Amino acid sequence: MIAEIIAIGSEMLTPYRQDTNSLFLTERLNELGISVAFKTVVGDNLDHLISVARTAVGRADLVIFMGGLGPTKDDLTREAVAAALAIELKRDNNLVTELYKRFAERRLQMPENNTQQCDVLAGAVVLTNTKGTAPGQWLETEFEGKARMVALLPGPPHELHTMWDTEIMPRLREKMPPAAIATRVLKVAMMGESAVDLRAAPIYKKYPNVETTVLAGQGQVEFHLRATAATKQEAQAEVDRVADELEDELGDAVFSSHGESLEEIVSYYLQMRNAKLAVAESCTGGLVAERITSVAGSSRSFLGGAVVYSNDLKTLFADIPPLMIEAHGAVSREVAVALAENIRELCSADIGVGVTGIAGPGGGTEEKPVGLVYVAVSNGHKNEVVQRRFFGDRERVRRWASQLALDMVRRMLM
Amino acid sequence: MIAEIIAIGSEMLTPYRQDTNSLFLTERLNELGISVAFKTVVGDNLDHLISVARTAVGRADLVIFMGGLGPTKDDLTREAVAAALAIELKRDNNLVTELYKRFAERRLQMPENNTQQCDVLAGAVVLTNTKGTAPGQWLETEFEGKARMVALLPGPPHELHTMWDTEIMPRLREKMPPAAIATRVLKVAMMGESAVDLRAAPIYKKYPNVETTVLAGQGQVEFHLRATAATKQEAQAEVDRVADELEDELGDAVFSSHGESLEEIVSYYLQMRNAKLAVAESCTGGLVAERITSVAGSSRSFLGGAVVYSNDLKTLFADIPPLMIEAHGAVSREVAVALAENIRELCSADIGVGVTGIAGPGGGTEEKPVGLVYVAVSNGHKNEVVQRRFFGDRERVRRWASQLALDMVRRMLM
Repeated sequence: MIAEIIAIGSEMLTPYRQDTNSLFLTERLNELGISVAFKTVVGDNLDHLISVARTAVGRADLVIFMGGLGPTKDDLTREAVAAALAIELKRDNNLVTELYKRFAERRLQMPENNTQQCDVLAGAVVLTNTKGTAPGQWLETEFEGKARMVALLPGPPHELHTMWDTEIMPRLREKMPPAAIATRVLKVAMMGESAVDLRAAPIYKKYPNVETTVLAGQGQVEFHLRATAATKQEAQAEVDRVADELEDELGDAVFSSHGESLEEIVSYYLQMRNAKLAVAESCTGGLVAERITSVAGSSRSFLGGAVVYSNDLKTLFADIPPLMIEAHGAVSREVAVALAENIRELCSADIGVGVTGIAGPGGGTEEKPVGLVYVAVSNGHKNEVVQRRFFGDRERVRRWASQLALDMVRRMLM
Repeated sequence: MIAEIIAIGSEMLTPYRQDTNSLFLTERLNELGISVAFKTVVGDNLDHLISVARTAVGRADLVIFMGGLGPTKDDLTREAVAAALAIELKRDNNLVTELYKRFAERRLQMPENNTQQCDVLAGAVVLTNTKGTAPGQWLETEFEGKARMVALLPGPPHELHTMWDTEIMPRLREKMPPAAIATRVLKVAMMGESAVDLRAAPIYKKYPNVETTVLAGQGQVEFHLRATAATKQEAQAEVDRVADELEDELGDAVFSSHGESLEEIVSYYLQMRNAKLAVAESCTGGLVAERITSVAGSSRSFLGGAVVYSNDLKTLFADIPPLMIEAHGAVSREVAVALAENIRELCSADIGVGVTGIAGPGGGTEEKPVGLVYVAVSNGHKNEVVQRRFFGDRERVRRWASQLALDMVRRMLM
């Protein structure tokens, strides 16, 4: 069975906005074993909408329309689908009464055009919108002799998500053969996509039953594994087998074996070891602290630290001797290590992190180019320090540097 | 003239990836006065691709295909477009020779299937790909008696952007009546969308010639203004008139009148006033510092500061008396002001910022609920402190709190 997802609204044809509902729907549809074959975006234009609707019911078993169900004259989805399928629209008097009641309760006069929200495709089931006003519709019909399912859903994500899960999922589940699906997500830090894939591909290619998607970016590579089988247990065994082999091959470069983020893993390890963390950041400017504190409950193991952007603050907050900066430069192995050691001691933490580097675009020299970063981690017994040169813009250099810092903390806690 | 943009690739029909090229193309097309009426995503499936191509040339004057031009058997765009338009594909022998040469230079054997990249639609112009290997194509033709322009472009964004700007833009510019377009972007901080629009709508609705798009999120509302006129000057005058009226109405809530980000504006004001900034952050955990340091050159006016997540660090790095925390709580007006004053003095900065609050989801009480935030700004002569309650999840509370902090710095510098 194949589906087409149609996002309706002229704002999604501007350079500023994008449909994101389709990602949510695709995930849910895939769970049921339904593939998305087409995605379409169209504006609030009746002719265009009819063209899109007619094309979709011609080629997909399930067609999902999102948006264009409100009360304004731009809300044309009902009319367009009726025209494309050559089905009548009927005003549902119960809906009209309800709508009047809702306005009356708020002592508001209802604008006449609101009643268009009560127009229902002949044969369709009305879907209650518990999060908003525009009701959805579900229709099972025939088009050119073929069975078709058509859903009309509201555009706002929270309305759509709720209506999908309560109204559409149960209906589709009945139609589809029961499939047991299992998924796993592995994440690898600080390796390039091609280096990882060179080692991973021979493994996941042995198991064509497990669908493997490789995503890379921002200092990590992710493997999304998915298997369908007769039972949940069987499907789980299939993805687990691939996940285990990938973990064996990639070793401790795999920081997450069930989809957790790197900052979640670091927070989790810190709590497990009952260890406290403090950071002293220069070029990342607070990004390492910000990522750790984005995890709920991180206050249990993260004390805080200093953003030592200027040299004076390196001395003030992390006791870096001015002579050390003069001798080695603020971006140096020595300063990174001293930042990590001193912030650990000053804050009475168990682990200290120091980051210094040149994020660019300015500030680079031949000896110390843009992208050069030193990260140090100290636990009082030993120090680790890594020098890396990252390529790309300021944002990318900072992101990779923060990724390196978090990954080094993780390794020290392992 | 209307355009359809088609993104090709099965990975874009998964829950993990999205077409973003279309946003770039839409911006460029709008500049020329061309609207995008349809966007479609389709996988690497010949039947589906032909269906999409045929529908598109039936309804749009300009059809842009992105992706599916490589050497693998999944690269079917050329074949599908040829079938949809009933046009022959011809192997271009010059391209074949070049391809052989490129492989020979690297002493590699060329796999036979690579030559499919040299198949050209009859009548099409070959577009050189300076950033990759797969060439693009440009075809002006007729379909069912109507003039059609068709572009085949590579999928990787940097290849597509370059080919678009060097090969497609000049061709389209020739076709289109010279239109002079002007744009302006205004941004407003710390007001809700409906509150802003209530005051703004009566203004921009007076000027239907200026297309106004309102975007809201993350503590700001943006007005994107666009006008087309006979001359650049006229178009500029039209958007400027609306922008000026909006600025008059919204006053100093408008922080950006030419699209700058709030952190850019703060950096700019700091440099203009030759002022140095330091921050002491609790609930934002480094986000304020991270946002400021994301601006290139921010080191000229940002000294750094402290992430005082634990109470001990509030005392260690910002001299907050433990008794003050005991008396008022860490999340209090008093602590926020002391953080701002003390960090300013300790760092010898001109302006100090203090942020404390409850980001959630845990840690709230009846008296001090999740979302409660105090932000203080001090310049040594006066202190400003604001108490706000933000709603939403941890990320949203932190984002709004950082927005409030940056906006208060901006106002103090005005």
